[in-house]
Amino acid sequence: MDSILPILQQAKAASRQVAKLSASQRSQIVADIADALEKNFDKIVEANQKDAARMDPADPKYDRLLLDKDRIAGIASDARNVSQIEDPVGNVLLKRAMESGIDLQKVAVPLGVVGVIYESRPNVTADVATLCLKSGNAAVLRGGSDADDSNRAIVEIIQNVLKKHNVTPDAVQLLPTDRKFVTELLTAEKYVDIIIPRGSAGLIQFVRENAKIPTIETGAGVCHTFVEASADLDAAAEIVVNAKTQRPSVCNSLDTVLVSAEVAEEFLPKLLPGFKPFDVEIYADDRAFEILKSAGWKKLHKAQSEDFGREFLGQACSVKVVDSFDEALDHISEFSSRHSEAICSTDPELIDRFLTEVDAASVMANASTRFSDGALYGLGAEIGISTQKLHARGPFALEKLVTEKWVLRGEGQIRK
Amino acid sequence: MDSILPILQQAKAASRQVAKLSASQRSQIVADIADALEKNFDKIVEANQKDAARMDPADPKYDRLLLDKDRIAGIASDARNVSQIEDPVGNVLLKRAMESGIDLQKVAVPLGVVGVIYESRPNVTADVATLCLKSGNAAVLRGGSDADDSNRAIVEIIQNVLKKHNVTPDAVQLLPTDRKFVTELLTAEKYVDIIIPRGSAGLIQFVRENAKIPTIETGAGVCHTFVEASADLDAAAEIVVNAKTQRPSVCNSLDTVLVSAEVAEEFLPKLLPGFKPFDVEIYADDRAFEILKSAGWKKLHKAQSEDFGREFLGQACSVKVVDSFDEALDHISEFSSRHSEAICSTDPELIDRFLTEVDAASVMANASTRFSDGALYGLGAEIGISTQKLHARGPFALEKLVTEKWVLRGEGQIRK
Repeated sequence: MDSILPILQQAKAASRQVAKLSASQRSQIVADIADALEKNFDKIVEANQKDAARMDPADPKYDRLLLDKDRIAGIASDARNVSQIEDPVGNVLLKRAMESGIDLQKVAVPLGVVGVIYESRPNVTADVATLCLKSGNAAVLRGGSDADDSNRAIVEIIQNVLKKHNVTPDAVQLLPTDRKFVTELLTAEKYVDIIIPRGSAGLIQFVRENAKIPTIETGAGVCHTFVEASADLDAAAEIVVNAKTQRPSVCNSLDTVLVSAEVAEEFLPKLLPGFKPFDVEIYADDRAFEILKSAGWKKLHKAQSEDFGREFLGQACSVKVVDSFDEALDHISEFSSRHSEAICSTDPELIDRFLTEVDAASVMANASTRFSDGALYGLGAEIGISTQKLHARGPFALEKLVTEKWVLRGEGQIRK
Repeated sequence: MDSILPILQQAKAASRQVAKLSASQRSQIVADIADALEKNFDKIVEANQKDAARMDPADPKYDRLLLDKDRIAGIASDARNVSQIEDPVGNVLLKRAMESGIDLQKVAVPLGVVGVIYESRPNVTADVATLCLKSGNAAVLRGGSDADDSNRAIVEIIQNVLKKHNVTPDAVQLLPTDRKFVTELLTAEKYVDIIIPRGSAGLIQFVRENAKIPTIETGAGVCHTFVEASADLDAAAEIVVNAKTQRPSVCNSLDTVLVSAEVAEEFLPKLLPGFKPFDVEIYADDRAFEILKSAGWKKLHKAQSEDFGREFLGQACSVKVVDSFDEALDHISEFSSRHSEAICSTDPELIDRFLTEVDAASVMANASTRFSDGALYGLGAEIGISTQKLHARGPFALEKLVTEKWVLRGEGQIRK
């Protein structure tokens, strides 16, 4: 294959057909996809075994790749949930009569063709396809080569359901994994309406550099927790330990602890019992280094400048002692990826200042950054966590897979 | 000057100060700017004269450049309106208790630093600066070199008002017009949160190719009006003439007429009395050419393929005869810039199909595309007309100069 443009062109044509389906047709298709995924679990497992056979079981991605009967039931159950949630298509966002008498409405409508670029987890294939169909969009999926057999099996099952509903299978297409096609996808503004990259910082950077199509960036989380002098230090230690250790591989886990100089000596040792079971590696600035060394912590390094603003994605973090509230805010402003930022404090004024002045998708007081999550926010199936400011910010779901359209109904009006 | 990064860095710092102002402070600053613009009209006119002296009065841009006492009063009056409209900052968009008991709110907050790139009209300087300040944002303005003296005078007046309110003048800055700085602006994602290009298709294309910062594209309008067989042909002729001739230099003016073959012979000659006073140049496909030639129209050309999908921005248009409703929709899908599209018809089903299936920011039945306008939609001071689908679509105003922020208030919650 020389070019994916013919595939994208078919997706565009298909998007016009999908946009015409009624809400109940869209729900029924997604519900039928859930059933079909369950019925065909042996076919999916067989394809998944081929993928697994190509990967070293010691690879940390191995577990994320594997599908068994339970996991497929989970994917089907997620699809069933998507079929039942309310979708925003057709919502009238504004309605008024213009001075000329024209009837004006602003209506939520599907985006058209949604392109998603992701890495190894095959469940994303079903998630994204069902969310796109439910919201009246066509999807072009560019999954990782690691999971290509699994993805092909899942997409084939979805396409068979589409055919049964007399919808063109072009509405959900899997792109070849050849890298040269990613650039082609990112510049096909004629056929693709939006690109959502889900994956590593490297992928997102590549998309930002090369996309001519509007994108919703997701992912990279460099998250701070600032333990301010008035904080309940025991509660703060619990929050920091949870934010760091509970699931360190995800974007809302903690990367840097900032602590007020006044309480650093008392606070930092309180982290160690919680860090102990996970053997957390600490990159500490000079003052924190001395305190933690005196407290007997072994996995301790002097922080280098690159350890601040670093996303660790493992059982490691950096620590810095700050002399003032403003120094903490300046540090966050400089190094945050604007994903999730937290303060531990009992001072209502400082809490308010933090929540107002810190520029991030989610800001929180006296809670673990791990709470930054679409399902916990009550949004339903999450598409990703946006770290940009336009259209979607923070965890986002189905309600952001639409755009607006102004609809005017006149009776021959002309402009004077 | 080697780099504008120091300016952008100052803007970022200033944006944190502006975001902290109360709604009444922001309104007062904008109201004071309105007064100051009026009081300093001689200073503005003097600067404007210098700009005018550099331009050939025969240049079509000359009139758009000129400022006199009335026009400055108009700019001040617009600023006064901006000071009075409701601003969205602080609106609580969602509020719920999370399962863990954390109090969750989604709040509208300023974007931060808004970069605007525009061409010759100096009134844009005041418009954009006041809209940004009113919504709690800092602005970096890159105006055209034609209007540089006028822009400098206006920005200086604005900065003096800021100083009186103890706000740093860095909150509104004019960038040097040297072209090399545009690329620097478009890639300064660390300091600038959003770029809005206002101007020619060439400028917008350049921004799309080079920006690493999220942008809201505005502008280019390739607008069609489809006269369907059931249309009231006299009303349709009035609509087409109005859409083409009333102000052909703007983006919502008509570029292409599509007409059903069944009524082409009767309809097309009806355009000519209305086109006559403006001597409209017509680029017609073969069938339309024969009809218009028989009707005696002189300014007539055989359309070339590039005349479809062409934005004329003058008293000229293309005309095509179509054999079916679907052919019209396919043509629009192929050539529209997704700005404003109209149908003239009396068939309610076809009208519904057109309004639903045509993919454009504004779709209308039985009205002139010239109605696609933020002020006419009741939005207040328009920032531009977005032709993209994310964040803002169609005419947009102050309510889109904000982003969302998730604010969580906990009491020590950790994630199990």
